[in-house]
Amino acid sequence: MKICRFNDNRIGVVRGDRIHDITPLFHALGEPGWPYPPYDWIIGNFPRIEDQIETFLRHADTVRLSAAKLLAPVANPGKIIGAPINYRDHIDEANADQQIAHGKTFTTLEQFGLFIKAPTSLNGPEGIVEFPFPDRRTDHEVELGVVIGRRAKKVSREKALDYVFGYCVALDMTVRGPEFAGFRKSADTFAVIGPWITTVDEIEDPNTLDLELTVNDAPRQKSNTQYLIYNVQRLIEYASAMYTLHPGDVIMTGTPAGVGPVTPGDVVKARVEGLGDLTIRMARS
Amino acid sequence: MKICRFNDNRIGVVRGDRIHDITPLFHALGEPGWPYPPYDWIIGNFPRIEDQIETFLRHADTVRLSAAKLLAPVANPGKIIGAPINYRDHIDEANADQQIAHGKTFTTLEQFGLFIKAPTSLNGPEGIVEFPFPDRRTDHEVELGVVIGRRAKKVSREKALDYVFGYCVALDMTVRGPEFAGFRKSADTFAVIGPWITTVDEIEDPNTLDLELTVNDAPRQKSNTQYLIYNVQRLIEYASAMYTLHPGDVIMTGTPAGVGPVTPGDVVKARVEGLGDLTIRMARS
Repeated sequence: MKICRFNDNRIGVVRGDRIHDITPLFHALGEPGWPYPPYDWIIGNFPRIEDQIETFLRHADTVRLSAAKLLAPVANPGKIIGAPINYRDHIDEANADQQIAHGKTFTTLEQFGLFIKAPTSLNGPEGIVEFPFPDRRTDHEVELGVVIGRRAKKVSREKALDYVFGYCVALDMTVRGPEFAGFRKSADTFAVIGPWITTVDEIEDPNTLDLELTVNDAPRQKSNTQYLIYNVQRLIEYASAMYTLHPGDVIMTGTPAGVGPVTPGDVVKARVEGLGDLTIRMARS
Repeated sequence: MKICRFNDNRIGVVRGDRIHDITPLFHALGEPGWPYPPYDWIIGNFPRIEDQIETFLRHADTVRLSAAKLLAPVANPGKIIGAPINYRDHIDEANADQQIAHGKTFTTLEQFGLFIKAPTSLNGPEGIVEFPFPDRRTDHEVELGVVIGRRAKKVSREKALDYVFGYCVALDMTVRGPEFAGFRKSADTFAVIGPWITTVDEIEDPNTLDLELTVNDAPRQKSNTQYLIYNVQRLIEYASAMYTLHPGDVIMTGTPAGVGPVTPGDVVKARVEGLGDLTIRMARS
């Protein structure tokens, strides 16, 4: 199933060129109240409405996909987690480019750990990426995004996929510089996810997916998740050893080689096999 | 005013040895609904109930402070932001101790930027700090905590204090190792704030406060916020240049020298002048 958020916070199932509005199914759940729970309300409650979806779809309102405004498919990810150096060819390009390395030598992921992108960096496919520091190099990074579906603490890689809700395309925008990745990647609008979440049952193996990115239709990044150094399962094991993962948490799994600067007005298209296309404009030109 | 959260998510005003329960004032605000807003519901709505507090207190229920269970005074900080190297004496001790430096040379804050502690690391004064990796050195770091009161984006240091709701004691727990600070400091229970928030009107200058920490009553850290390299105003300017700050966001301003390991069963007392004492137990012994 392909789950999207669209227009005025509607929740939809994407089938073909239409979105089927399933928002009313969530009304029975009531409102989240205060304090807000640590999980995303829709993803966390999805199991409670899941078996009603097919029946509901027979009479659901629909809108044309091309006429809808798609929002980030998770409205309230508790954590947006990033993996810094998780493709060999990206480690090599980073070490060869002092605008990326800034004196550091990139070795292994466990030398750097993971980073957190500020929740305020969340952005959707029809947003705009804004540049906090227009005079600093600002790069695109296409990634496979993993959306957690169940509370996960210290889970093994063997069981890790049981905790996944689904997958999406992720664009991890980055200002280059010496600071922590988590700082340079946390600007408002810098965590783009979309166009929807493809649920885990539709993806046989998340570690064999082509991914690519173009800027103004020129190819920039092209790889396959088979080259992930820490694959999806191992990333979940590693992250959940440090902190609890909750439904709606997003793990951006790392980017392959080909990262590079964008400038205002550029149009970035990011694609992951089976997960759709994410097209977004870079700042106002 | 001293604002606390206690027992079953009650909101209180601390006066002397009693907590005055002002929770009913917030009922008129309704519920946050979905999506959750990017700000903490109580801090974000505080201006709407503030002028009713004094009248309400005449008849408010009270409980003895010593009989209440204090929780983290912000229930839903949108961001918990940390400043990594912000006291000269801590930079010196970190560079002299390879268990802290791990091959890095600490220079200036702008070489590292700020880090984000995972929202799931939030903890309150009567919680327990758990050790994710008992075999790794795990340190205490006492800090002045700043609680944001108004949406702040690109604010100048001259106006920065207008955006502060109040201050609290903060304990920034840390696993030592080579990884990003934001990873090692993001374990569940690692962001302790409390015992309450002292509103900005009660603190004449946040940059002249004594702070100290003891472990099992033995002194470990003792300094004054006058030694902050980036003072409170400058941290707000710096952070808000990268991302939007929202009501309830917490900035941990950095720790002075004297950081050191704790072991299960230790009792840590952290104190900042005028903001109260925060006492918390380190893991189960």
